[in-house]
Amino acid sequence: MRSVSERTKALKGSPIRRLVPLAVAARKRGIHVYHLNIGQPDIPTPESFMQGVRQAEIDVLCYAPASGIPETIQALLKFYADMGVEITENELRVTIGGSEAFAFALQTTCNPGDEVLIPEPFYPNYSGHALMNGIKVVPITTRIEDGFHLPPMEEIEKLITPKTAAILFSTPGNPTGVAYTREEMQAVGTLAKKHNLFVISDEPYRELMYEGHATSVLEIPGLEEHAILVDSISKRLSACGARIGCVVSRNQDVMTAINKLCMIRLSAPTFAQLGLANFLNDPNYKHDIENIRQKFHSRRDTLFEALQTIPGAVCRKPEGAFYIFVKLPQVDDSEEFVKFMLNEFNLDGETTMVAPGAGFYASPGVGHNEIRIAYVLEEAKLVRAVEVLKAGLEAYSTLREEVAATAG
Amino acid sequence: MRSVSERTKALKGSPIRRLVPLAVAARKRGIHVYHLNIGQPDIPTPESFMQGVRQAEIDVLCYAPASGIPETIQALLKFYADMGVEITENELRVTIGGSEAFAFALQTTCNPGDEVLIPEPFYPNYSGHALMNGIKVVPITTRIEDGFHLPPMEEIEKLITPKTAAILFSTPGNPTGVAYTREEMQAVGTLAKKHNLFVISDEPYRELMYEGHATSVLEIPGLEEHAILVDSISKRLSACGARIGCVVSRNQDVMTAINKLCMIRLSAPTFAQLGLANFLNDPNYKHDIENIRQKFHSRRDTLFEALQTIPGAVCRKPEGAFYIFVKLPQVDDSEEFVKFMLNEFNLDGETTMVAPGAGFYASPGVGHNEIRIAYVLEEAKLVRAVEVLKAGLEAYSTLREEVAATAG
Repeated sequence: MRSVSERTKALKGSPIRRLVPLAVAARKRGIHVYHLNIGQPDIPTPESFMQGVRQAEIDVLCYAPASGIPETIQALLKFYADMGVEITENELRVTIGGSEAFAFALQTTCNPGDEVLIPEPFYPNYSGHALMNGIKVVPITTRIEDGFHLPPMEEIEKLITPKTAAILFSTPGNPTGVAYTREEMQAVGTLAKKHNLFVISDEPYRELMYEGHATSVLEIPGLEEHAILVDSISKRLSACGARIGCVVSRNQDVMTAINKLCMIRLSAPTFAQLGLANFLNDPNYKHDIENIRQKFHSRRDTLFEALQTIPGAVCRKPEGAFYIFVKLPQVDDSEEFVKFMLNEFNLDGETTMVAPGAGFYASPGVGHNEIRIAYVLEEAKLVRAVEVLKAGLEAYSTLREEVAATAG
Repeated sequence: MRSVSERTKALKGSPIRRLVPLAVAARKRGIHVYHLNIGQPDIPTPESFMQGVRQAEIDVLCYAPASGIPETIQALLKFYADMGVEITENELRVTIGGSEAFAFALQTTCNPGDEVLIPEPFYPNYSGHALMNGIKVVPITTRIEDGFHLPPMEEIEKLITPKTAAILFSTPGNPTGVAYTREEMQAVGTLAKKHNLFVISDEPYRELMYEGHATSVLEIPGLEEHAILVDSISKRLSACGARIGCVVSRNQDVMTAINKLCMIRLSAPTFAQLGLANFLNDPNYKHDIENIRQKFHSRRDTLFEALQTIPGAVCRKPEGAFYIFVKLPQVDDSEEFVKFMLNEFNLDGETTMVAPGAGFYASPGVGHNEIRIAYVLEEAKLVRAVEVLKAGLEAYSTLREEVAATAG
């Protein structure tokens, strides 16, 4: 039989996904698993959003306009105005989650064979979208010791070739929680203008910021023709299942192209668009987002403090989002360690699942002693999950020493 | 500034979409427009679907599983079993509308540079998806005089090259309403097996059938490794805005590849998945679909009869879906005629908008004297819309004769 396409064969399943069956098996053995491995918050979705869905007066569930329901678009324009960014309806398209917004940005800016620069570690689905579109990912390696901030622009500049079409990143970032400073964003903008690159900034966590202000790419002056914002309500509304995001750019060629892509897929889901409009039209919407932000802020502080009790663990306090990267000197293959935690370890019937670090790097051999923790559980559970993790690390080290001794 | 990608530049806006501003302008002038130009039914969405959405007990609107919510998958398996097709949960993935199901099928079966055979006239978004994936569309021209049934397989076989990866079509079809007979489907299957091709069958209108049974690609024996069903609830539930479809194949390599594509985009919208599960778990769901089918059946008969009153109009009675293609001998550029109807004509303050035929053909120069009518309005309106169309055709012919006389 004819084989499936080379691109889909080359697509890697995410290492987190590959490990999920082990967690299922552990739960079947009666082990309680603290799931710090995925970015799925446990925080209730705001009531005004849910009401907007439930109370939608719909007789015929028609296609929504391809670029978004007008009411939703207007609500989003006001949302950006509230954060000090004035955009018009020609500069925004509602998308099926941030995922589609990202895919549209990539397809619009890059030809097959083009290159995109991405600071690593990065969200693994970026690679999947790039692969499916024939685009090469060129990683900009960032370091845990620098809190994953960008290296000097001269280093990034060395990676630019005639095929480089865009630089892209998430800020505040998945998987590290780094939020680029205004100076960093401006420096990226200067580089992009010098080399005529697009800047694709993925900002679903923009409101989940714990140290000052998260600078949006839309706030960088002079970058109007270069900047493309990829946005999503999934995280700041705890509404991942809504599948609503948007893409914003002041470059009208980009928006015209994206409009054509919107038309091919017809429309974004109606119910969640109406939920979002109702949420944003509620005068208290900022309060709801601030509540969510505060929860993650406390969790970050609690988690960071708890992590200090793990001997040798290296991490910086993340500025935003709900992730932290941790280097574990006791571990040289964190995927093996995660498997150990799920298959062999428990502390009083409990274990902790985290994400192996290497899956977030494009460079080979990097990140194998790192893990990503998503602080998506309440604080008491985070503290306990770290206790379990710490005990697991000790058991893992002991086991490895025994194995080494036996081998020796 | 750097240009947008060549692919997005090459994407054509649909001619129907391009003409919409003219309809808006006509309405602003006070003209009532009968919209027979798009496949958006006016029939209410079944109440059990809406209840499933409204009554969903959701605290945290999480990501749904990438391949679909288990309850929705089970309901869909039962739906296919009810039509006599037994499939397992490994053979089905819930998608974001039929659009995504189609894109996944194309991406999974074709490498960039591959060719796909498509009987024309066809749904224009097929071309858009093919273009975005670097795939060449090779049209199989079908004729209005044959009711758009397939030409002899020997003719199709001549179009097959070493690069041909798949043959794809919709049945019952948009834009012609043709439903391939079991014999045609079997012949396509035999050809696909002989040349090792995938068969992608897009069947959102399968239940909207007025002459016998609509044969699904899943019903063709021996085609298990070749057949991919693209499906959608948009039309048979009058739920276009739900954005729920699915892709079904018994080829496990195909399903593994599609699962990776599902993971990249995370999940299909939760609310509409729950609406669908509630709809399909209602013991009366077939009755709801049958009600919708009957409405379109009556409309088809009424419309077809009304069209017989237009002198010289050529059309065959479509077997399914809710479209009919009509050849208008008075017209040699139906896009110009549609513009005339919107810009210059009205009958007692009313006009009719249809879709120009050429936009549904990939072959140049074909279909310019054809239009597509979507019978998405109630019968009395359809009768009046055809009266208006007929008067418009007479006025258009008279105008053209006058212009010709003046020029001569």
